[in-house]
Amino acid sequence: MAIEQSANRFVCDLIAYEPGKPIEETARELGLNPADIVKVASNENPLGPSPLAKAAMEKALGESHIYPDGGGWKLRTAIAKRFDMDISNVVLGNGSNEIIELLCHSFLNPQAELIAAEHAFVVYKLMATLFGAKYVEVPDPNFVHDLEAMADAITPNTRLVFIANPNNPTGTVVGQEALDRFMARVPDHVVVAFDEAYHEFLDDAPDVLKYVREGRNVAVLRTCSKIHGLAALRIGYGLCSKGVAEILQKARQPFNTNAIAQAGALAALEDADHVAKTRAINKEGLAFYEAAFKERGLEYVPSVANFILVKVGEGDKLFRDMLKQGVIIRAMSGYKLPDWVRISIGTPEQNRRCLEVMDSVMAAAV
Amino acid sequence: MAIEQSANRFVCDLIAYEPGKPIEETARELGLNPADIVKVASNENPLGPSPLAKAAMEKALGESHIYPDGGGWKLRTAIAKRFDMDISNVVLGNGSNEIIELLCHSFLNPQAELIAAEHAFVVYKLMATLFGAKYVEVPDPNFVHDLEAMADAITPNTRLVFIANPNNPTGTVVGQEALDRFMARVPDHVVVAFDEAYHEFLDDAPDVLKYVREGRNVAVLRTCSKIHGLAALRIGYGLCSKGVAEILQKARQPFNTNAIAQAGALAALEDADHVAKTRAINKEGLAFYEAAFKERGLEYVPSVANFILVKVGEGDKLFRDMLKQGVIIRAMSGYKLPDWVRISIGTPEQNRRCLEVMDSVMAAAV
Repeated sequence: MAIEQSANRFVCDLIAYEPGKPIEETARELGLNPADIVKVASNENPLGPSPLAKAAMEKALGESHIYPDGGGWKLRTAIAKRFDMDISNVVLGNGSNEIIELLCHSFLNPQAELIAAEHAFVVYKLMATLFGAKYVEVPDPNFVHDLEAMADAITPNTRLVFIANPNNPTGTVVGQEALDRFMARVPDHVVVAFDEAYHEFLDDAPDVLKYVREGRNVAVLRTCSKIHGLAALRIGYGLCSKGVAEILQKARQPFNTNAIAQAGALAALEDADHVAKTRAINKEGLAFYEAAFKERGLEYVPSVANFILVKVGEGDKLFRDMLKQGVIIRAMSGYKLPDWVRISIGTPEQNRRCLEVMDSVMAAAV
Repeated sequence: MAIEQSANRFVCDLIAYEPGKPIEETARELGLNPADIVKVASNENPLGPSPLAKAAMEKALGESHIYPDGGGWKLRTAIAKRFDMDISNVVLGNGSNEIIELLCHSFLNPQAELIAAEHAFVVYKLMATLFGAKYVEVPDPNFVHDLEAMADAITPNTRLVFIANPNNPTGTVVGQEALDRFMARVPDHVVVAFDEAYHEFLDDAPDVLKYVREGRNVAVLRTCSKIHGLAALRIGYGLCSKGVAEILQKARQPFNTNAIAQAGALAALEDADHVAKTRAINKEGLAFYEAAFKERGLEYVPSVANFILVKVGEGDKLFRDMLKQGVIIRAMSGYKLPDWVRISIGTPEQNRRCLEVMDSVMAAAV
């Protein structure tokens, strides 16, 4: 008997997530020097980690043999203080992806439904599938979440609605008014998860933390993987109403977040200078790409995040061709957008190099 | 409506795992200096992290902004080579605890059963509960797994059997012959998980990797949290038959293990010197405690691991009283062993201090 027959069908049927291609793997496969490769595929911080975080993590390594504080007392206290909440509102995750998993573990089952936008972050679907739940995709005209249609899709079986704001891979955002109208329609049996992984890149960010403070059934997801530059460490957090937080705390492993990440996050959240520098370089990069795409007559989705979606014809081919020249971008066929690629905003040098290689590859293809 | 009514009952009903008390928390609560506290509560390596691992991790921190290699190519290749297996046999986890969770996620559901020994590592029960499965506890006379009785307990609904070898918190081990007899009785619809977190402390360790090589439905769990001294980092691995490994890989998050841990584990596994030193200090400490307990007429369970279970009367009270004097041991009421405490083997100085405080507290109690 094959062991698959003993396993949960919805796990076996899963098609694994395809992450941005790692630099080392690319170097190995193509015989290139890793230092010559530009990776603009995973929305990482091109300035590197927060220097304050790096120093804190170096110090923490001395105690590598000691288990992390499973309760994350120091970090959760600092986060609570930062957002004027109580420690009981804060849940730590092994990346904010784990908060997604904890939500699914707590609220989904084969009878339950999760609602998300058609071009939402693909991990929602992956996690819903992993718990055997029904994944309900709501069309998002012009790549913007249609919150009215998402509210219309709520049924008595709906347990979770995910709103990625800004959304990855589209870079679009929904505003305060639409959010308030939506929340007025959400019934009490539904938990709304606002995934704000890219929140810190926004100028006029809508406030969804007020729903937490009002005691609505919500979870606001934040991460240290993006603007704080700690993707390697896996640390994110959820700001949740107490009832939701209490359940998520039960669904997690006793030591789900590592101690080095806790130390790094604590310092990174205070590193206003690194955040400001990152925002500045990101704005410059977004403007650079938008101007370049306009000049070339390429359709793109105006972005408020640290990446941009651009229509290039055959995305998989462009990805492969640029890869051969040492530039890693992200093909979008996994998002059912085969004509598009997603490019993360890099340093000015990385942006120029990426555009040059893109130009040369696209010119050769004509 | 309370949000609990929307959540999965088996998650809400869970009683959270109580980990060893962190040093910082103890210092804060008691107004003590963290440096004056001895923690012998979580089976950590008293010599600290592998120095080779520490150096590798310091280097890796420079790339903290880059996502980990989700496939863990380098580390999995090294592990496969070390055990003469294929990379497809190796699954990485956020601590070996995550491998336990991946097994439960893949094979358990409300119709399934998990079998473990009565005094087995408590996380098996926690994880089984988290997936709504039936947890079947088999009595373990003299704190030793009764593999015949565990085989007898297998039903058509059994999906997982956990054998902790050596077991935590008892420190006992089952030998090759008993394992072979057991495996001869296990039907194909069952996956056997050998949890070998303390394997490296054994002198004549039984070989269960042969079952992986034979293609049996097994998973052998190892960790870097114990002898390698990387508990803070959260990294463990499973050596599994290919069919089992393939399913576990689907159940995990794309970036479940952090990059610093991957770099540390890679170096730690090669650090034979640190392993040898840790084994030596551990043997010395075990002999010290066994002699001391004999001298005091205290019943204890002869241990082959890096901790020892000793019968002290009221374990919770001894824990609290020793805590006040800055020594953290582990009370065992969570294991339904209220008369016992578990003490992790420390450095000779830590062992002496722990015993002194234990003596003074127990003398005062008479």
